[in-house]
Amino acid sequence: MLIIKYFKAISDAAMAEEVKKKAKLAIIAWSGSVDKLYPVAILSSAAAAGGWEVELFFTFWGLNAIRKEMLNAPPKISSDYAEYGPAVAQAMKEMNMPPWHQLLAQAKAMGNVKIYACSTTMQLFGIKDKSALADFVDDVVGAATFLERAKDAAVTLFI
Amino acid sequence: MLIIKYFKAISDAAMAEEVKKKAKLAIIAWSGSVDKLYPVAILSSAAAAGGWEVELFFTFWGLNAIRKEMLNAPPKISSDYAEYGPAVAQAMKEMNMPPWHQLLAQAKAMGNVKIYACSTTMQLFGIKDKSALADFVDDVVGAATFLERAKDAAVTLFI
Amino acid sequence: MLIIKYFKAISDAAMAEEVKKKAKLAIIAWSGSVDKLYPVAILSSAAAAGGWEVELFFTFWGLNAIRKEMLNAPPKISSDYAEYGPAVAQAMKEMNMPPWHQLLAQAKAMGNVKIYACSTTMQLFGIKDKSALADFVDDVVGAATFLERAKDAAVTLFI
Repeated sequence: MLIIKYFKAISDAAMAEEVKKKAKLAIIAWSGSVDKLYPVAILSSAAAAGGWEVELFFTFWGLNAIRKEMLNAPPKISSDYAEYGPAVAQAMKEMNMPPWHQLLAQAKAMGNVKIYACSTTMQLFGIKDKSALADFVDDVVGAATFLERAKDAAVTLFI
Repeated sequence: MLIIKYFKAISDAAMAEEVKKKAKLAIIAWSGSVDKLYPVAILSSAAAAGGWEVELFFTFWGLNAIRKEMLNAPPKISSDYAEYGPAVAQAMKEMNMPPWHQLLAQAKAMGNVKIYACSTTMQLFGIKDKSALADFVDDVVGAATFLERAKDAAVTLFI
Repeated sequence: MLIIKYFKAISDAAMAEEVKKKAKLAIIAWSGSVDKLYPVAILSSAAAAGGWEVELFFTFWGLNAIRKEMLNAPPKISSDYAEYGPAVAQAMKEMNMPPWHQLLAQAKAMGNVKIYACSTTMQLFGIKDKSALADFVDDVVGAATFLERAKDAAVTLFI
């Protein structure tokens, strides 16, 4: 009985244990359209340049977008905003904006950026291993592993 | 004058009060398409299995998706990715992936998962009470209540 | 050698430096459809009413939506849920729901709400300065500045 109370106390303490946060950005990159992949790359880039850690988890259509054969496919804009597509493409060209995945690769070269591919989505899309994905992918992990990595991030986003 | 300074000091202290974080996942489930509802269920499931607390707030199209009559309706994929729909449906079948709401119900049976429906959306859709919603719904609350519950979550997402 | 160890220790300490969180909501408002802009306004409103600080960063289609000429344009619903558009518009009218940007302006008048426009998107859309945007915009800043402001927020969302 005392032992049960003892373990109960330990378990309650564990439940209430504080999670300490640090300058770290964790993004679940779910989308496959360029108007959402740019924010992933730009936020990662800004965070890395500021000395933050960055952890990205590419899943669903985001994972599809980093398959090697997709990286140089014509960029797709969200259909809700398709009317602005040509004007935005033209403006990006004039601003000499690099492709989003190049921006992300630069952020990774410069700072502390870790990039993961979602193992469940890999199976869903029949992708065997990370050799089929962009070279910037560090590892293939599950959602549980990513949550543990995101736990101490000051900013967490689903994009 | 001294009293004003005194209250000012208390108010500043209150503003700056630290919020302690714990292993807890808080998701605002806004979307009604299965490719976003699966991430809600999978992340909740992974978090619950790891001993995290989970708080979900179904709002807008997410709330629409948990009306009893919608649970068994044919699943809808985001129109931006409709071209992949048939292949993904086939792959899910081969992987014996249960429906997203069954996954979520399992996560709730297994762990510390609380599920709320947004009161404003209830009114907007003319839904009288939670009997019209999936059985896993614990309560109908407003955005302010949900923010208070999300405040100490280590990971917060809008999906 | 000792000096290297010394700097290593400093660098480890810097990396591990704790970020303290407070009652603050930080939202990246990326979307331009009303069914996502209402959540931005309603969450901001609920947070401000509860004494939280609020920081909003309008970017991409969210920024487009706060150009002065867009504020009174007919509201657009996400195409994925277009079938519900007329019923929702009718219900909002019956509930006397004010336009989302009016709700947000009220939240700002009432509480501690700061609203920023994304500098990169300004350039992309050829918007010269904040006079072209809704009056509630406080400043034009970059992603790095916004991340620093979001760092101590208890709840961070990308909508």
